[in-house]
Amino acid sequence: MQESCHKDVEQAFRIFEARFAIVKQPGRGWDMEDLSNIMLTCVVLHNMIVKNERDEYDDVDSEDDPIIMGNRRSALTRSLSISSLFGARRYVVCYNCKIVARNFRMVSYDFFWEFKVVEGFGVSQVVDSDNPNFKPGDIVSGFTSWEEYTLIYKTEQLRKVQPESMPLSYYVGLLGMPGFTAYAGFYEVCAPKKGEYVFVSAASGAVGQLVGQLAKLHGCYVVGSAGTGQKVDLLKNKLGFDEAFNYKEESDLDAALKRYFPQGIDIYFENVGGAMLEAVLLNMRIHGRIAVCGMVSQNSVSDPQGIRNLFTLVIKRVRMQGFLQSDYLHLFPKFLEDIIGYYKQGKITYLEDMNEGLESGPSAFAGLFTGKNVGKQVICVAKPE
Amino acid sequence: MQESCHKDVEQAFRIFEARFAIVKQPGRGWDMEDLSNIMLTCVVLHNMIVKNERDEYDDVDSEDDPIIMGNRRSALTRSLSISSLFGARRYVVCYNCKIVARNFRMVSYDFFWEFKVVEGFGVSQVVDSDNPNFKPGDIVSGFTSWEEYTLIYKTEQLRKVQPESMPLSYYVGLLGMPGFTAYAGFYEVCAPKKGEYVFVSAASGAVGQLVGQLAKLHGCYVVGSAGTGQKVDLLKNKLGFDEAFNYKEESDLDAALKRYFPQGIDIYFENVGGAMLEAVLLNMRIHGRIAVCGMVSQNSVSDPQGIRNLFTLVIKRVRMQGFLQSDYLHLFPKFLEDIIGYYKQGKITYLEDMNEGLESGPSAFAGLFTGKNVGKQVICVAKPE
Repeated sequence: MQESCHKDVEQAFRIFEARFAIVKQPGRGWDMEDLSNIMLTCVVLHNMIVKNERDEYDDVDSEDDPIIMGNRRSALTRSLSISSLFGARRYVVCYNCKIVARNFRMVSYDFFWEFKVVEGFGVSQVVDSDNPNFKPGDIVSGFTSWEEYTLIYKTEQLRKVQPESMPLSYYVGLLGMPGFTAYAGFYEVCAPKKGEYVFVSAASGAVGQLVGQLAKLHGCYVVGSAGTGQKVDLLKNKLGFDEAFNYKEESDLDAALKRYFPQGIDIYFENVGGAMLEAVLLNMRIHGRIAVCGMVSQNSVSDPQGIRNLFTLVIKRVRMQGFLQSDYLHLFPKFLEDIIGYYKQGKITYLEDMNEGLESGPSAFAGLFTGKNVGKQVICVAKPE
Repeated sequence: MQESCHKDVEQAFRIFEARFAIVKQPGRGWDMEDLSNIMLTCVVLHNMIVKNERDEYDDVDSEDDPIIMGNRRSALTRSLSISSLFGARRYVVCYNCKIVARNFRMVSYDFFWEFKVVEGFGVSQVVDSDNPNFKPGDIVSGFTSWEEYTLIYKTEQLRKVQPESMPLSYYVGLLGMPGFTAYAGFYEVCAPKKGEYVFVSAASGAVGQLVGQLAKLHGCYVVGSAGTGQKVDLLKNKLGFDEAFNYKEESDLDAALKRYFPQGIDIYFENVGGAMLEAVLLNMRIHGRIAVCGMVSQNSVSDPQGIRNLFTLVIKRVRMQGFLQSDYLHLFPKFLEDIIGYYKQGKITYLEDMNEGLESGPSAFAGLFTGKNVGKQVICVAKPE
């Protein structure tokens, strides 16, 4: 962890330690393992708090129910699968990376202060609800939390899941936000044409693996990068990429890209930022498109790498566009139909890395930053009843 | 000039000195003044060469004319106005800035070797022509050179000018490539909507001044930045910008932009790159657009500043798009009609910085990098006959 991050984390820890008497080894900087431990502690603590809330909930008369806010009615849900990535990053990253913290408007300095539970996407089963749209037993996906039971006030963001013989955990991945990010980003932002040259970084991740497969179905030539030999092998032999390489084994990324794309890159699905983006810029073709989705390599550094090659945007007339899937929700029904169709026809496959038990969340999350996971990292919290 | 550029320039100079015995002061790096002197020398030398070519041209029988290449026929033109900016930059920048040199594929290392004349846009009068589309006396605009007479082989790139009571020099500025860059960039790349907040850097330049005025005509709120108090004054009091500021007087560009755009920026017409782009990224609004046109601040440094705030492209879903006017040539007739109409109705104005005589070209060019010019820098070479 970068030196300049220490102060914030130290401060958070001092408050944390004061309240919970967690002992830190003297003379050692805080690392991912520490954060993982803190998060684990918070998850456990929060589950205790929520359990109390749930008990209270059962006793409240619905007429005076304080949880009914305006037109929004609540649902108490039981977590089934949670995605380890998104929500959690919002928190940890803020300690880790000043620049992202600023972008996120410092939402999360209260993580340690107020011991809010970590938020994230998940699939849950409704236990009880005073919103007539949700009945006990319904399966829903949406923003939930790292806990066994969640009281959800913003029920309008929940989406009912019709399992249709698809694994439930797929609704936090292939059929959830990551899959939809790949779908909207590739078709709407990249505007692909048959025969174009497509490069995907973090290609074995939840988003990248689908982008590559959609690009192949679209008639493109697709190369992916990943961080281990095992992932490269999966990309080439299981996910149908034309080529793949381990970026950690390339001392010169520009040269590597020139080897795989002697004719240049039409579309870059950008998941990592940093040195890879820099090298890609030198290899873009005229009128190329860069869909900016991630820049994950820059999330865990407080001093992100500056990109020097932006002048190629002019020379090659490149469109570089940031996007969030939430701007394309009108396409969600078509996305589900298309992807479930492709999956059932055997035209796409999907890699998951499943951990069992809520307690495995923090370490699985920390593992994302070191590339431990293969495919979409999911935590199975419980089975549906 | 940066250390790492010296080697190339030194090498060029060694050849130059060997042939022309130009004496360089020992122990001093090459600077803009040196380059300006070299260019001046080259222009003068080249004019001698071209004069010989012209004399030869008069003697050649058109049947055996070696200058007829395929369907292209040549025209001998006399320069009237030349633009000091574009073509010349292609040459000097290559010695100045590694990264741009790479983008331009090292086109110009032969500048000193072969003593090619500096290319650039200009308005010329046809002296003689074996292409039936051009008759002596015709006024044309297009790629020409820094010389009194030019033999143009690629006549298909020439555009006949119907003066229509507009000053001829406007055809290298307001009604030429810079004006069309502003027009295509603003309407096609920025996709403006009435009421949006528009920021233009290098706002008093040939492109920027028109972008700002078009944005005002479109019903936008427009702020420009420039590098002197005089330019700021012109922007506010002559060119109709809502606000303008001198970026050299702002120690914190982010704070300056927050002052002028408390609600954020919808459209940034990017002419300078570097620290300004970095600050703008922090102030973009959701679904903002950045039309990348220049990055001129990075042209004269061999180690361009890396841009660290690109993550905001994702958070704010910003589209950042490089462009060249040459991709929009189908719009050129409409551009001329629109802009001449606006000008004659007094809805837009135009600032020119006119130098007299071909010899003033190199120093005017060098002045662009220090902000000496006010408005479009033009060299008047001769008057039409």
